[in-house]
Amino acid sequence: MTGSTALFTDRYELTMVDAALLDGTAHRESLFEAFARRLPDGRRYGVVAGTGRLLELIERFRFADAELEWLREHEVVRPATLDWLADYRFRGDIWGYREGEAYFPGSPLLTIRATFAEAVMLETLVLSTLNFDSSVASAAARMVSVALGRPLAEMGSRRTNEGSAVAAARAAYIAGFDATSNLEAGRAWGIPTMGTAAHAFTLLHDSEEEAFRAQVEALGPKTTLLVDTYDIARGVETAVRVAGTGLGAVRIDSGDLPTVVGAVRDQLDALGAVDTKITVTSDLDEFTIAALSGAPVDSYGVGTSVVTGSGAPAAGMVFKLVARRDDGGDWVPVAKASTSKASVGGRKNAARRLDSTRTAREELVFLGDGPDGADEFAPDDQLRPLMVPLMRDGEADASFTGPEGTRAARAHRAEVMQELPIEAFRLGRGEPAIPTTYR
Amino acid sequence: MTGSTALFTDRYELTMVDAALLDGTAHRESLFEAFARRLPDGRRYGVVAGTGRLLELIERFRFADAELEWLREHEVVRPATLDWLADYRFRGDIWGYREGEAYFPGSPLLTIRATFAEAVMLETLVLSTLNFDSSVASAAARMVSVALGRPLAEMGSRRTNEGSAVAAARAAYIAGFDATSNLEAGRAWGIPTMGTAAHAFTLLHDSEEEAFRAQVEALGPKTTLLVDTYDIARGVETAVRVAGTGLGAVRIDSGDLPTVVGAVRDQLDALGAVDTKITVTSDLDEFTIAALSGAPVDSYGVGTSVVTGSGAPAAGMVFKLVARRDDGGDWVPVAKASTSKASVGGRKNAARRLDSTRTAREELVFLGDGPDGADEFAPDDQLRPLMVPLMRDGEADASFTGPEGTRAARAHRAEVMQELPIEAFRLGRGEPAIPTTYR
Repeated sequence: MTGSTALFTDRYELTMVDAALLDGTAHRESLFEAFARRLPDGRRYGVVAGTGRLLELIERFRFADAELEWLREHEVVRPATLDWLADYRFRGDIWGYREGEAYFPGSPLLTIRATFAEAVMLETLVLSTLNFDSSVASAAARMVSVALGRPLAEMGSRRTNEGSAVAAARAAYIAGFDATSNLEAGRAWGIPTMGTAAHAFTLLHDSEEEAFRAQVEALGPKTTLLVDTYDIARGVETAVRVAGTGLGAVRIDSGDLPTVVGAVRDQLDALGAVDTKITVTSDLDEFTIAALSGAPVDSYGVGTSVVTGSGAPAAGMVFKLVARRDDGGDWVPVAKASTSKASVGGRKNAARRLDSTRTAREELVFLGDGPDGADEFAPDDQLRPLMVPLMRDGEADASFTGPEGTRAARAHRAEVMQELPIEAFRLGRGEPAIPTTYR
Repeated sequence: MTGSTALFTDRYELTMVDAALLDGTAHRESLFEAFARRLPDGRRYGVVAGTGRLLELIERFRFADAELEWLREHEVVRPATLDWLADYRFRGDIWGYREGEAYFPGSPLLTIRATFAEAVMLETLVLSTLNFDSSVASAAARMVSVALGRPLAEMGSRRTNEGSAVAAARAAYIAGFDATSNLEAGRAWGIPTMGTAAHAFTLLHDSEEEAFRAQVEALGPKTTLLVDTYDIARGVETAVRVAGTGLGAVRIDSGDLPTVVGAVRDQLDALGAVDTKITVTSDLDEFTIAALSGAPVDSYGVGTSVVTGSGAPAAGMVFKLVARRDDGGDWVPVAKASTSKASVGGRKNAARRLDSTRTAREELVFLGDGPDGADEFAPDDQLRPLMVPLMRDGEADASFTGPEGTRAARAHRAEVMQELPIEAFRLGRGEPAIPTTYR
C-alpha cells in the first residue's frame, strides 16, 4: 500500500495546527496518550491490534502537492501553514504496548512525544487504526479461546468495508485465527488464505455431482466440498463418491449445527471417509462456537461477528494530550475536567504484576510529570514491563511492521494469553479480569 | 483513488472461476442478485448506499502484473486461469436500486448479468460496499429524521477503519447529514468538511482564554469554541468576552446535555450573543438526539454510532446466483434449498406501490425466469419503478459516480423519505414499514 495518508484526518487537527502556529504554541513539546476508559460492556480483557499498520501509515503521512492544493483551494488553513505542512513529516518518538498485548481500562497503549503540531495531526489515524483493529482482535481472541485449539478462518470481508476487511483479517490473525478468505490480506500481510467454493458454484451446474466433479478436477480430492446446497446427507454421499474417501473436508453453512455435524460425522465414518474433516461456517460467533465444543467439528469459518467486533465494533479508545512543556521548559501534566470523560494527566509507564505462577494479577500504571521528570520503575520477576519503543525520531522499529511484525504480534498474543487468569476467558459479562492501579 | 481492487476478494471466488473454466461452465450467462433477507432487528426501512463507490471500484477490478504474480506464486489458480484473469475486465450489465433509495426485506437491490466467471468474482466487492455503506446510511437516516431539520455533522472517523471512515462520511451525507470532519471525504466525494478544535488545544495553552484568543485570531470570531474543558459557564463567559457577541458557535462535548444546553442558551442570550449557535457532540445516537428535540440545540455532531451503524454494523446483504442459462440457452431459475437461508430464484423487477397521497404501501417484487423471458410490469401513477441501469457492457453510468453521483443520491434519498409512511420514522423496534410482496 502506498500513497499519502495525510487526509485520513479530521479537519480540526489542521485548524488547531493553524492556530497554534500563529501564536507559537505549536512548537511546545507534548505528550499524547491513547487509552481506553473502559472495555466493551462485560468484556474481561482487550487485545491491542493495529500498531504495526499504524507505524506504516504514519511514515506515509506526508502532504504532497495534491493534498496541499486541495487544502489551499478549500481554505482549510492559512497559506503560511501550507508551507509548514509541505515540510511535515513525523519526527517524534512513539512508545507503547506491543501489538498482541492484552489491555485493560486505563492501560497507556500508545504515547507520542513530539511538538504539539507534529503529534496532534496523527490523532485521527492513531484512533482509526487502534479502535478498529483492536475491536476485531478483542472479539477474535474470545472466539479463539472457546474454539479449544480447533482452527478458525476469518471470512467476513463481505460484511465490512473493502479496506477494513484487510485490516480485520490481519487483526483476527494476530488474535489467533489461522487463515483468512481475503486475498489482499494474504498479499499485504502474509496471512494464509483459504476458500474453495460457494453455493453459486453448485447452482451453476446441472447437478451437485457435476459441480463436485468440476471442483475435484481443478482443486484435487483434498479440497473442501460445500455439501448443503440441497440435501446435506445426499451432498455428503455424493461428495465421497466423487472425491473418494481421501476427500479433504466438507463444509456446512446452514442448519442446526450441533445435530447436523454429528450426523455428517457418522455418515462420513460409515462411508470410510474417516479422515475427511468437517468445517462449519454458519453465522458463527463466540457463543455458537462454544455451543459446538462437544460436536465433532474440525474447523470454523467466522464472518460478520469477527469483523464487526461481535457487538463492540469500536474499541472506545481516545487520544489525549496528557503533558506539555511550559515556556520555562518544565513538563506540565494536563487533563480535561469532566466527570463523565475523566482522564489522568501526566506521563505513564505500565507493568503487569504476575504472581508466583506467572498469572497476571494487576495492571500497574506509573504516573510521572513527563519523560524527563520521572524515575522508571524497577522491573523484577513479578513485574513485566508493558511499554516498548515503537518509533524513534519518526523511524518505525521494523520488527513491528510488515508481515514479520504481524507474525511477531500473533506470537506475543499467544504468550500473553497464557498469563491471563482463567476468569478472563469466561464468555459471560463481567468485570475486567485484573484491576488497573495507578501509582 | 486509484489502483487495482482485484484482490479485495475472497479466495473462493477465484477457485470457483478456476474450476468453472476447466469444465466450461464459467461461460454460462448468469444473473446474480444482491438483497437483504431482513432489516436489522426492529428497523422499519433501510437506505441503499455504496452503489456509486461500487461502480468505480468495479471499473478498477483488473489483474495487473503484481496481482497475477502473487496469485501465481501462491498457486491460487492454475496457470491457464491466470491468462484468463490477465484479460479480465467486467463487461456485463448491472441494474438495481438507485443509491439513496429506501429498501425492505427481499428488495432486489442489485442485479448483475454476465458470464458466471465475470460476475462471481465481484461478489466480495459488491457486498463489502453495499453492506457497510448501507449500514451507515440506514442508521444515519434515522438520526436525520429525529433531528427535525437541525444540521448533523459526521465526525466518527476515529471510530472506524481509516478507509471505511471515508465511505462512512459519504454514506451519512447521502442519508442527509450536512458535513463531515473527514478531509479525504471532502476531497474524494465533495462533501463539506467542518471542525475547529479539540480539548487538546485548550490544554496546550496556559489558560482557556489564551486558547480562545489564538483560535479566534486564526479562524475569526465566526468560529466554534469548545467550552467544556474546565467549567462550562466560565468557558461560555470567556468565549463571548474573547470573540465578542458575534461568536459563531460554542460546542459542548460532555455533561447532562438537555440541562446544560438550556443553561448555555440562557447565558449566551444574557451576554448578548443571541445569534451564537450551540452545537453538541457527546456520544450521540438517534435516541439521544431525539431526547434533545426540546432543547435549544442548533446542530449535532455524531461519531461512533453513525459509523458503526448504531447497533447494526453490517446490513446483512447477500449475493446469490438466481438464474443461469442451460446448454440450450434457456434461463433456469436457481436457489439454495434451506429453510433458514431461503432465497427466491429467478430474475426480479421491483416497484413501490403508492397510494393516492403518494405514500408508499407495498414493495412489489416481480418474478421472472430471466432477462429475456419475462414481461416488464406496466408502471403507472401508483407504481414507481425501482430498478435503473447502473452499468452497461462494463461502463458505469457517470450520473451515479463521483461527487455528482453522491449529491444525486442524497437528493434522491430526500425525495424517497417523503414517500414513506409516518410509521417508518418511529424509533422503537417494529416491523418493516411496508410489506414485500412477490408477484
